[in-house]
Amino acid sequence: MKQDTICALATANGIGAIGIIRISGDDALPIVQQCFKGKDLSHQKSHTVHYGYFVDGDEVIDEIMLSIFLAPKSFTTENSVEISFHGSPHIGKKILETLIKNGARMAKAGEFTMRAFMNGRIDLSQAEAIADIIAAENEASRKVAMSQLKGGISNEISILRNDLLNFVSLVELELDFAEEDVEFADRTALTQLLNKIEFKLKSLIDSFQYGNAIKSGVAVAIIGKPNAGKSTLLNALLKEERAIVSEIAGTTRDTIEEILHIKGNAFRLIDTAGLRETEDTIEAIGVVKAKEKVAQADILVYLIDAHTNDLSEDVSMLNELMRTDLKSIICITKSELTQNNSILKEDILKNFQQSISDIQILEISAKENIHLQELKDELSHYVENLKTTESNVVITNQRHYEALQKSIEAVYKVKEAITHQISTELLAYELRNSLEHLGEISGEFTNDEVLGNIFSKFCIGK
Amino acid sequence: MKQDTICALATANGIGAIGIIRISGDDALPIVQQCFKGKDLSHQKSHTVHYGYFVDGDEVIDEIMLSIFLAPKSFTTENSVEISFHGSPHIGKKILETLIKNGARMAKAGEFTMRAFMNGRIDLSQAEAIADIIAAENEASRKVAMSQLKGGISNEISILRNDLLNFVSLVELELDFAEEDVEFADRTALTQLLNKIEFKLKSLIDSFQYGNAIKSGVAVAIIGKPNAGKSTLLNALLKEERAIVSEIAGTTRDTIEEILHIKGNAFRLIDTAGLRETEDTIEAIGVVKAKEKVAQADILVYLIDAHTNDLSEDVSMLNELMRTDLKSIICITKSELTQNNSILKEDILKNFQQSISDIQILEISAKENIHLQELKDELSHYVENLKTTESNVVITNQRHYEALQKSIEAVYKVKEAITHQISTELLAYELRNSLEHLGEISGEFTNDEVLGNIFSKFCIGK
Repeated sequence: MKQDTICALATANGIGAIGIIRISGDDALPIVQQCFKGKDLSHQKSHTVHYGYFVDGDEVIDEIMLSIFLAPKSFTTENSVEISFHGSPHIGKKILETLIKNGARMAKAGEFTMRAFMNGRIDLSQAEAIADIIAAENEASRKVAMSQLKGGISNEISILRNDLLNFVSLVELELDFAEEDVEFADRTALTQLLNKIEFKLKSLIDSFQYGNAIKSGVAVAIIGKPNAGKSTLLNALLKEERAIVSEIAGTTRDTIEEILHIKGNAFRLIDTAGLRETEDTIEAIGVVKAKEKVAQADILVYLIDAHTNDLSEDVSMLNELMRTDLKSIICITKSELTQNNSILKEDILKNFQQSISDIQILEISAKENIHLQELKDELSHYVENLKTTESNVVITNQRHYEALQKSIEAVYKVKEAITHQISTELLAYELRNSLEHLGEISGEFTNDEVLGNIFSKFCIGK
Repeated sequence: MKQDTICALATANGIGAIGIIRISGDDALPIVQQCFKGKDLSHQKSHTVHYGYFVDGDEVIDEIMLSIFLAPKSFTTENSVEISFHGSPHIGKKILETLIKNGARMAKAGEFTMRAFMNGRIDLSQAEAIADIIAAENEASRKVAMSQLKGGISNEISILRNDLLNFVSLVELELDFAEEDVEFADRTALTQLLNKIEFKLKSLIDSFQYGNAIKSGVAVAIIGKPNAGKSTLLNALLKEERAIVSEIAGTTRDTIEEILHIKGNAFRLIDTAGLRETEDTIEAIGVVKAKEKVAQADILVYLIDAHTNDLSEDVSMLNELMRTDLKSIICITKSELTQNNSILKEDILKNFQQSISDIQILEISAKENIHLQELKDELSHYVENLKTTESNVVITNQRHYEALQKSIEAVYKVKEAITHQISTELLAYELRNSLEHLGEISGEFTNDEVLGNIFSKFCIGK
């Protein structure tokens, strides 16, 4: 089937030194040739770059460089051209208009990657990894996406799937010889394989919590009474970060959350942008508001001024806020101003001994940089502890998570079928079912709706 | 001299499918090789593209494509590499950090183009044209910048300069034979050449008004009494425009001026964004405010409702606003609602016959699209009339304008020197002086301050 030729701006919107427009499809070369004053493109090798002018008839639009990628050695596996032009949005628009006039059409969101998938260059989880890589805002999520792009999750699953496929063939063979009552597929060996698959799926499913923390960042609520030192602490934590960010331009942060990076992991300091300006207080926000914030959080950092004489308010607030699934860190702040913090620390410990045993208490001084590193380490440990030791592959994608859940349920059903020695027909059916769910991740079994949903979230030009 | 190796993001900031980082300098290839898991780059041909991974030690940062441009066949004439990566700002930052760790340094604004100029690949006016092309927001300014990039202004001036240089040599030869009182340089022929140069310079200087209109857009003030139909007219004019703009994403307009494009020229409708919402009125803004707006404008479009019985207010306002250097167009609006516009038109004409003869009066209906094209044509004519017929080259750059002014003054002085038959020494000095000013545009005569000033306005990565 002839593939129509698509084009789109591939670089970010806005003014830059260079802009790239990507063209892919059967007519990519002849269409570009009509707009190119330079060499004859039909005789050029793949992976070569050519200088010339982009023209619309007699009108020179821009001085450009063309990169040629011939099928199947391109991203889409189709003939592709990349036009590098002077990065003016106006020129980008003119070039696209001219390409469309000459027979190309505007690509839909994610259409280049969808073609790479459809043409078998990458599987679905790799296609998703490309979107994740582009969206990666921190080291941890870049690394996970990179490993997925290199086929991490697909490899792990395809090994399991192939083993299972062998059994399915054997079971289906039994159906062909149904009247003879033979058993080609060793039920004990099959059960062993299913156990292995179950174990693997479980560890992948377990990695999702870690994957989510990586991808979306860990939510940290910083709570404390007025003048507990929240602003000072936040400024101290974010100060270094800002210096790094402003050093190399290109990253903008306009969310209302402040993002703190520690060892490549992102921590979202919930709603603190507003808090910092107004020096929000417990009184002002009240217990209900504080609980709301903490409900969204993975970690609670609770600040207590080292000068506090009466702990009763803090204790009752903490008792309200703490949950067993919430990592809680108490920071005694302004420790530079007082000598007897350890008394306060023991006081606090006394109040919580009964309820929560693993509570962390740090005596910090944001002003004199005392124990701030320990606080960062504590945040870091939270993420590290989420890592499952069983697998190097981490699930970050909701769709994969759901497919894995369905797969494991299907595996349970197969195991049940074996235990209850049900008919070979039904066993074959359940086995096929689990194969399909396992195949969903890599896109071996999928449908247009799922694909449309995945690729519509891509940017245009990808 | 060894050129240190510079690197920078070349594409626009933000998330895109592809980002490009450019590296140029003597060590571009060895530095990139240290971060590249793929082919040996030292044996590759110029203008070739290579697939691989960008790595920092053992850590894979991204899957990339490298384009190699070997000296002198690159933009800077140095060895250069372009890294095409997945367009995440985070990855761009990681790649730059790794390149810097391996010996490159961040490029300063415009440093790639400055090297192209310093290494003789382009002259200064072409370097400036690159910045203009990138900043071009409309067809007219793109065309002028493109013609300048192709050497338009440099060519015109260099022919004149070469002719003049011949005369300078002859005059300086006379100095060597001073005691013999010979005249190698024919003063009549020199005067003829100077006249030719003067004529050319004048026509270039004259083109600056047109160039400025192209580059900055033509300022149009739309004024009228309340309910004269300003909103409706503006919406009708801008409607088509908006459709085009929204068709292909990538252009943002966040100025308070509305920009209207007619035949590739930009018209800035002054401050009308605010006006349209509040339906600003003559009473509200008063004569002073209206005059302020019109003072910034090249064109005044004055609206009069076709139902107006008493023209006295409009006439007195118009008499206040009109100037001889201001193109004025009177629009009788809502002409669909009445039959006897021509009476009103004659009334208006009567009131202005004495003062301004070339006033345009159009009967328009924004609602029924009557004579809107004529209004656009009138705006268009204004720009076309600025075009000087003498030269195809248009000056858009303030620096060029000033250099041309100084050149023409120097030419006047030389001519005066010839007329007054002053000493050969002084003539030679004045001739050298005019040569230098002519050489300023192409950068043959320049200084670090001028260069610094020009290139600091470039974006990083260009």
